[in-house]
Amino acid sequence: MLNKLKSKYEQYLAANKFKGNPPMLYESMNYIMNIGGKRVRPILTLLGAKVSGGKLEAALPVAHALEVFHNFTLAHDDIMDDAPTRRGKPSLHVKENTATAILAGDNMMITAFDIILNADLPNKTEILETLTNTAREVCEGQQMDMDFEKINHVTIEQYIEMIRLKTAVLLGCCLQCGSISANAPQSTYKLLYSFGVNIGIAFQIMDDYLDLYGNSELTGKRTGGDILAAKKTALFNLAWSNANQLQREKLELWFDKTKTDEDTRLANTSRLFDELNIQQRCKTLMEEHFSSAKELLVNSTLNKSDYQDLLDLVEFLRSREE
Amino acid sequence: MLNKLKSKYEQYLAANKFKGNPPMLYESMNYIMNIGGKRVRPILTLLGAKVSGGKLEAALPVAHALEVFHNFTLAHDDIMDDAPTRRGKPSLHVKENTATAILAGDNMMITAFDIILNADLPNKTEILETLTNTAREVCEGQQMDMDFEKINHVTIEQYIEMIRLKTAVLLGCCLQCGSISANAPQSTYKLLYSFGVNIGIAFQIMDDYLDLYGNSELTGKRTGGDILAAKKTALFNLAWSNANQLQREKLELWFDKTKTDEDTRLANTSRLFDELNIQQRCKTLMEEHFSSAKELLVNSTLNKSDYQDLLDLVEFLRSREE
Repeated sequence: MLNKLKSKYEQYLAANKFKGNPPMLYESMNYIMNIGGKRVRPILTLLGAKVSGGKLEAALPVAHALEVFHNFTLAHDDIMDDAPTRRGKPSLHVKENTATAILAGDNMMITAFDIILNADLPNKTEILETLTNTAREVCEGQQMDMDFEKINHVTIEQYIEMIRLKTAVLLGCCLQCGSISANAPQSTYKLLYSFGVNIGIAFQIMDDYLDLYGNSELTGKRTGGDILAAKKTALFNLAWSNANQLQREKLELWFDKTKTDEDTRLANTSRLFDELNIQQRCKTLMEEHFSSAKELLVNSTLNKSDYQDLLDLVEFLRSREE
Repeated sequence: MLNKLKSKYEQYLAANKFKGNPPMLYESMNYIMNIGGKRVRPILTLLGAKVSGGKLEAALPVAHALEVFHNFTLAHDDIMDDAPTRRGKPSLHVKENTATAILAGDNMMITAFDIILNADLPNKTEILETLTNTAREVCEGQQMDMDFEKINHVTIEQYIEMIRLKTAVLLGCCLQCGSISANAPQSTYKLLYSFGVNIGIAFQIMDDYLDLYGNSELTGKRTGGDILAAKKTALFNLAWSNANQLQREKLELWFDKTKTDEDTRLANTSRLFDELNIQQRCKTLMEEHFSSAKELLVNSTLNKSDYQDLLDLVEFLRSREE
């Protein structure tokens, strides 16, 4: 089912390439849109419509708008995070320049609104309201993430609030907007929203978990890359929350890129994480959110097939290799 | 009248400061909004409502949304143009950093849509459509401007198309949205839109004109600053269009910052402009657009007082000193 939704969206995307003048602006937008990705957000949108009894055709423009919105955030985040590549290809600001990437991002955000405004949907004002609220939260999450880089100690609760805003609310928004496009009642789309936010948080914690405890052959990334880059992910924040004074001093030392060599930093940090049982703690935290998501389904009035589709979604996200 | 509209908006702005978390995000937005400016866009919006028989109170959120949108473009343009100051104060990306300025701009664009979505207006979908169309054109104009920097020769027609998109359509949009907020018929708001676009083009040409032919005591800028910065304004493009081969070679030489000293570049360019009668040509071009704007009014069914308000607007813009 999920692969069917994905290919349905891919077809729609291929038929709706951006066109316009000056060409550089629209080619840049197409570049980001076609750099790959699992199309999680359009899949969620279409699934939200499906489990609400709607037609996929009506939800496709909404799915597209949300993928365009997501790609706007990627274009700007890559500038802010100084990321040279995205999915193995040059980031737009590296391929072209910062000005073009800012502008292409701006025009994608505008286009996301435009697509919904032009869609033949009775409830488009509600969809637009959901998108603007979510978009504001995504900006707040990104600012929070940047603020966190400047302070040493973030509690795990603060960290989860940051990933909720930066990543998870958009997944909830996709399910909700798909559901609204199918004229679902508020009780349905609110449930789907909470489900999406919970799997979004779990999804992001899993990302942090896999960095150190994943199979690097499957993830394709260097084991412990986040530690070497001194990124304060869920692992670090869990360790910090559970460490005593001496352990905190060690953590600070090993997260300082200027003080020790990479192998020492990685080996020592991993050992301390083991001492503090971080692998299990992180797994538990992730499972809590996956369980909260599933519990919402159990207590809902969804029919068996829709229920199964949403459970499949959890597995689809959980099994990701990227 | 125009000063009354301006102070009405200033009051509204002061009562509607941005608030939220993280504070850095919202303080950055307030910084840009309160750096000054003539508030041309809110004035136009309120005037559009007034001459359409609407209430100013209903149009105020629309005026605010359009000023917020305009300030989003300023925040991003200053990054793209590498402008260290804005109205004598540090640009946001200089005061804070590029990432914060990108994000504050993004959140301002989202907020502009949000303000309209939350306004108590029956025609808000039409206002949103007008804004998204205009916003896309503004991006296209900015890309065109950046593209032009890389090519030597732009015709005056191409240049006018660029300033139409980058600057003028937003002025038309303001009048149109104000008019729509007052439930005006299409014939009225389309007329106001065209009027706004024409004065917008004239306004921008005047900016170029004043750089060399204005009273530097009044403009507060160095005479010929655009020439010294090798900016290809209306003056340069008019000269290029009217120059022979030899004159073009000279122009290219004097616009190359690496080849000659500033005084020589400015003196020689001014002399060549005089030879080519550029001051008069530029004035004529500007007056053509002011006249087109006025003609639209003459042929309209506006009452005498509204007609006078719009004429006052032309004078208000024409007499600007910044």
